[in-house]
Amino acid sequence: MSVTKFAIPEVIFGNSSLRYLGQCALRLGARRIFLVSDPGLEDAGWVQRVINILSEDKLECIYFNEVDSNPRDWQVHKGAQLYNEEHADLIIGLGGGSPIDAAKGIATIASNGGRIRDYEGANRIMRPLPPMIFIPTTAGSGSDISQFCIITDVERQLKMSIISRSLVPNVSIIDPSLLLTKTSELIIASAVDALAHAVESYVSKLASPFTETQALFATSLIMENLEPAARTRDPMALEKLSIASTAAGMSFSNAGLGIGHALAHSLGGRFDVLHGLVHPVLLPHVMRYNMKVCPAKMERIASTVLGSCTTSGASQALAGIERLESLFESLGVTTKLREILPDDSQLEEICKMAVPDECALTNPREATWVDLMGICKEAW
Amino acid sequence: MSVTKFAIPEVIFGNSSLRYLGQCALRLGARRIFLVSDPGLEDAGWVQRVINILSEDKLECIYFNEVDSNPRDWQVHKGAQLYNEEHADLIIGLGGGSPIDAAKGIATIASNGGRIRDYEGANRIMRPLPPMIFIPTTAGSGSDISQFCIITDVERQLKMSIISRSLVPNVSIIDPSLLLTKTSELIIASAVDALAHAVESYVSKLASPFTETQALFATSLIMENLEPAARTRDPMALEKLSIASTAAGMSFSNAGLGIGHALAHSLGGRFDVLHGLVHPVLLPHVMRYNMKVCPAKMERIASTVLGSCTTSGASQALAGIERLESLFESLGVTTKLREILPDDSQLEEICKMAVPDECALTNPREATWVDLMGICKEAW
Repeated sequence: MSVTKFAIPEVIFGNSSLRYLGQCALRLGARRIFLVSDPGLEDAGWVQRVINILSEDKLECIYFNEVDSNPRDWQVHKGAQLYNEEHADLIIGLGGGSPIDAAKGIATIASNGGRIRDYEGANRIMRPLPPMIFIPTTAGSGSDISQFCIITDVERQLKMSIISRSLVPNVSIIDPSLLLTKTSELIIASAVDALAHAVESYVSKLASPFTETQALFATSLIMENLEPAARTRDPMALEKLSIASTAAGMSFSNAGLGIGHALAHSLGGRFDVLHGLVHPVLLPHVMRYNMKVCPAKMERIASTVLGSCTTSGASQALAGIERLESLFESLGVTTKLREILPDDSQLEEICKMAVPDECALTNPREATWVDLMGICKEAW
Repeated sequence: MSVTKFAIPEVIFGNSSLRYLGQCALRLGARRIFLVSDPGLEDAGWVQRVINILSEDKLECIYFNEVDSNPRDWQVHKGAQLYNEEHADLIIGLGGGSPIDAAKGIATIASNGGRIRDYEGANRIMRPLPPMIFIPTTAGSGSDISQFCIITDVERQLKMSIISRSLVPNVSIIDPSLLLTKTSELIIASAVDALAHAVESYVSKLASPFTETQALFATSLIMENLEPAARTRDPMALEKLSIASTAAGMSFSNAGLGIGHALAHSLGGRFDVLHGLVHPVLLPHVMRYNMKVCPAKMERIASTVLGSCTTSGASQALAGIERLESLFESLGVTTKLREILPDDSQLEEICKMAVPDECALTNPREATWVDLMGICKEAW
């Protein structure tokens, strides 16, 4: 095995763990906090709850909510300017992947200057970032754990992947009770995103025993808990999905992803598609494409998906993929690409844009834009 | 599930990962490094290798080697004085648990003052420690990962447990090729220590899904690789034991241990017994004692030990313990307490000293000194 790295933030996990927020911020030397979230979380009451917790510890709070789903480069620049004007000294991201990724981008520009586009790719951030605490409100993005930050470049109409050890926060506070205000649709979309993180990172070229354990653990928890969580919003099942999302985050942050995420970024940049809608459509076809080069790993994933304790060849690998397809159908989510795109006229361009995406570099099997077109056509 | 915390250092793992040491030290702002190791590692050439790597990056090095197996309080105080006199700004621990624990103690006193005894117990370290990088040379102690530091109080003849989030280093560089200079006896003793970490933390009162995954992963790797590593020193098997020790460290650091380690500390403080010799003696009896209060977890551990994929009741839990006993016998290690103690005259005092040990607090089943006497008698 070649040299591998494994880095994660300090994790504080559990119902009501949010109450440790002030204590964590104080330990990191904070006085004036820059809080990034979005209007949806204001409506759910969580933004006020966070501000109240901080004020109990006499921590001042500057609040920034100009964050779209798929955060834009100009939003990051605006936030960074405000961060510096207000002399903030710690950044909190509260939300799904979008506010947390926006917070990462703001932290990067506030401390390193320039434009967010300057940091696209791996290991481009040179100066230390301000202390960061993230509070995920979905069980899926893993952004509260990961070295990844995805920001939409409006001019080029693409989602940039910015990857750096510096983007791992100091602390991730994961409070599964925050999931209780989410719709079933969002719970499903987030969980399938986490499942895609687990499966893609498990077969990634950079996977290590440290990431593989987390990926299989996440897969197993999602298969056992997604249906009960979606159907009855059982708090225990939601807690398990939170654990799974965290474990999948530990895996993909350190192992990288694959062509499913490369295509999702390309699609999301062009059509502003909700990230979590793409994976039920693409994941089974991406798995079929990769199976050829990593059959043993695909069998292992399949045995985890099927809850079986033995592996028995290629037929099992296929049975695992089919089990995922039937699960997605039974959950009533979109499984056809044609249902989320207006037409197929831009598919070629989307596939060409996905090839140089950082996530494509760690896919176990090389893929040209023609190969990606094949996958999109199967998924159509 | 109540609120749980999970914190580990950044891990750099793999053969030749030692070459990243200078880069890591520079990233942490170091100029004058305080290196803690011992004469055995000088003889094996590793101390000089580390000094050479640091000098390539123009990093100065102050070397401290006054560390016994079971490091003493006065050695920690002497090291801390030298650290401050020399105006060092980063500490490296190179070795098994002893030099790394000594480095943790030195870092604590150098930055927080006082005597190491002042920090006995949990969460007593208030001021930040200097940056720390640890390089383990055994696959067992997990001290390079953990929040634990064990120092012998010479006056009271006991091993103190000092537990703090601050004792987790910034980086652990784990290079399995360093194991190649170790004897088979040391490899076995270290691996059984790691196995005890995995088993005790798996059933600990503070175990969480994050630690349980690591504990089972470590157990499985040790069962598959201990015999080949000990018999043929197969580099692949040694690498797997390193991974297992790291995973077990992630588990016990966050979940705590149990009465096996409480007794080991008490025995080690009184008789200066090599820590790794104690666990093959105690572990099976500690497991039998705990089985009553956590039967399902003991069955799960047993199925991992037996490499079986199903669990089938109490008989399987016992079969797992018996499998461990036969493994220890086949490896030719001491399995009777009478073989490592001069006589049984001090057993009562040893058991009384073990009761207030921090590790006893997280054992799943309460144990009075009389209960511990029962375990020692079974192990005699």
